[in-house]
Amino acid sequence: MENRVYNFNPGPATLPLTVLQQAQAELLNYKGTGMSILEMSHRAKEFDEIVLGTEALFKELTGLGDDYRVLFCQGGASQQFAMLPLNFLTQGKSADYLITGSFADKAFKEAKKIGSAQIAATTADDKHNRIPTQEELTLQREAAYVHLTTNNTIYGTEWHYIPQTDAPLVADMSSDILSRPWEYQKFALIYAGAQKNLGPAGVTVVLIRQDMLSDINAALPTMFNYDTFASKNSMYNTPPTFSIYLLQLVLKWVQAQGGLTVLGQQNKEKAALLYEALDEDDFYRGHAQVESRSLMNVTFRLPNEELEKAFVAAAAEIGLAGLKGHRSVGGIRASIYNAMSPQGCETLASFMHDFKKRNR
Amino acid sequence: MENRVYNFNPGPATLPLTVLQQAQAELLNYKGTGMSILEMSHRAKEFDEIVLGTEALFKELTGLGDDYRVLFCQGGASQQFAMLPLNFLTQGKSADYLITGSFADKAFKEAKKIGSAQIAATTADDKHNRIPTQEELTLQREAAYVHLTTNNTIYGTEWHYIPQTDAPLVADMSSDILSRPWEYQKFALIYAGAQKNLGPAGVTVVLIRQDMLSDINAALPTMFNYDTFASKNSMYNTPPTFSIYLLQLVLKWVQAQGGLTVLGQQNKEKAALLYEALDEDDFYRGHAQVESRSLMNVTFRLPNEELEKAFVAAAAEIGLAGLKGHRSVGGIRASIYNAMSPQGCETLASFMHDFKKRNR
Repeated sequence: MENRVYNFNPGPATLPLTVLQQAQAELLNYKGTGMSILEMSHRAKEFDEIVLGTEALFKELTGLGDDYRVLFCQGGASQQFAMLPLNFLTQGKSADYLITGSFADKAFKEAKKIGSAQIAATTADDKHNRIPTQEELTLQREAAYVHLTTNNTIYGTEWHYIPQTDAPLVADMSSDILSRPWEYQKFALIYAGAQKNLGPAGVTVVLIRQDMLSDINAALPTMFNYDTFASKNSMYNTPPTFSIYLLQLVLKWVQAQGGLTVLGQQNKEKAALLYEALDEDDFYRGHAQVESRSLMNVTFRLPNEELEKAFVAAAAEIGLAGLKGHRSVGGIRASIYNAMSPQGCETLASFMHDFKKRNR
Repeated sequence: MENRVYNFNPGPATLPLTVLQQAQAELLNYKGTGMSILEMSHRAKEFDEIVLGTEALFKELTGLGDDYRVLFCQGGASQQFAMLPLNFLTQGKSADYLITGSFADKAFKEAKKIGSAQIAATTADDKHNRIPTQEELTLQREAAYVHLTTNNTIYGTEWHYIPQTDAPLVADMSSDILSRPWEYQKFALIYAGAQKNLGPAGVTVVLIRQDMLSDINAALPTMFNYDTFASKNSMYNTPPTFSIYLLQLVLKWVQAQGGLTVLGQQNKEKAALLYEALDEDDFYRGHAQVESRSLMNVTFRLPNEELEKAFVAAAAEIGLAGLKGHRSVGGIRASIYNAMSPQGCETLASFMHDFKKRNR
């Protein structure tokens, strides 16, 4: 498409062009119903098919079986930070939180408002430039759950192993869900705001093992109880219909690419292009330690802030958008989720070389 | 547009065709940014303009001043049922609920989970076919707030007066917000899921008088605290960006129609077409008592259920969709929110005459 930029924003983020084109083509008349999907009742059979089809597709892509449910909530990961302890941090229990960045810390602080929670590991002293090792985790054997953030968008680190725990493992996978083949079945609950790897902002996906649903306190407010969503196929009330529709289109795109194996390999190669550009010499300095590097968000500094500003501006001029880093780390952040094409990463890597040559 | 039906669904509901066409036209490239609005960071200046512009437009249309804020939440009215008491039903206080239908009752039951609340009026004995009079309300002078549902989609009744209360007045206006000029400033808080009169599902609008924000318990989960949304212009976390964008397009359409005075008059005329068809004789029997009739949802029965099924099927055949009533009332429900055209109501009224002639 003419004038389309490479969009490196951390989220909402770039979507597959074919998904946008399909949404555009059928926006006025969904499958011959004579109405837009935006206008369609969530009780219509066409929408029922979307919800059930999206759940099925999620399970197919992740390899999760019938012992899991896929729920479509709202409010983003931030609302999950509260829903999780409301549902599972029962009286007399304590939860373990692994603090690897700002969002992990926010999740922990919300849990503390609701019940008892402890920090089982933190990399704050290293400015969150790494993921802790299994040996560093001081887990409570009887914890209500262990919570981690699998990818840290701000710091550009990512968990490359799944920690061993006695307690149910819970993950905020907002920024790397479906980016690689993984043992999803090791998690009791996974949640993800859609606006990075899954679709548009406005829907939050929860993958939950069914046994987790059995002990939830029925006195919870209805909309904060996971079982409300599970028992009503996410349609206790009106769900965010258009966001779920678009999510399904993205999942079909993932499937058409060859699923998580193909995308996982492609994501490795895309990230390698940028990390190789970083590692050539010391003009660019990556924030994350090498073994903890994220395949989704590549964070780095330049020799000084003036050059960083010039980098972002010069990149934008050639259609590389959204490269400004988060203020906590400064510098540059390139977010290269599933929908960022290899060409986008090649163009950025090539720009990095040129920029260095001109400004060394 | 060819094959476009008249969509009488109760929500998600019909949207103005020009709004859909504009969304379609700019879906791949928002204002020359080279990306879709679906892909745009909520921190982009273009999105900031949308959020601030939508708040300003809301105030302009309702006549609310700077002592109000407009918040963009998620989770629909059902989540507001819990957020409201969490924020305002403080220890030692009790809230008054006016029960005029299913959603009012759900709101009351959520409040009871969180604190003390009483039924200050109910029309359950009349199958919710009317709105109580001021004299029927047994209000507590020191109530935390008084809650009402201004339009009852299922039963087809609507408040045509604003009750006098000592306590702050709170309204669920999901199904009639912006449908008429009204004294919005008499309400301390108004909330509305967007998917009836405002836009697509996925965003919930809260109009709140600023003084209500001053006493909220800071220990509340962050995402359940109205002040989180007020202090961060609804961008503490990623808001449902596309839904807000579309909401703004709908508000601009409302303004272009001539605002609430013009739409209010048109809504009266649209509803009159259908109520006149009901009142001709006793073939059709309206559910709501005449003085409580809703201008948004017209509910009625036919002589028997077989005829009702035939009515819905025959209507669908000529492009009148979504007319099946809710199981609580049975029969037919025609939802005729702002975006339903007068032509749609004329076509339905004419179909009602024909159907009666053929089936009397």
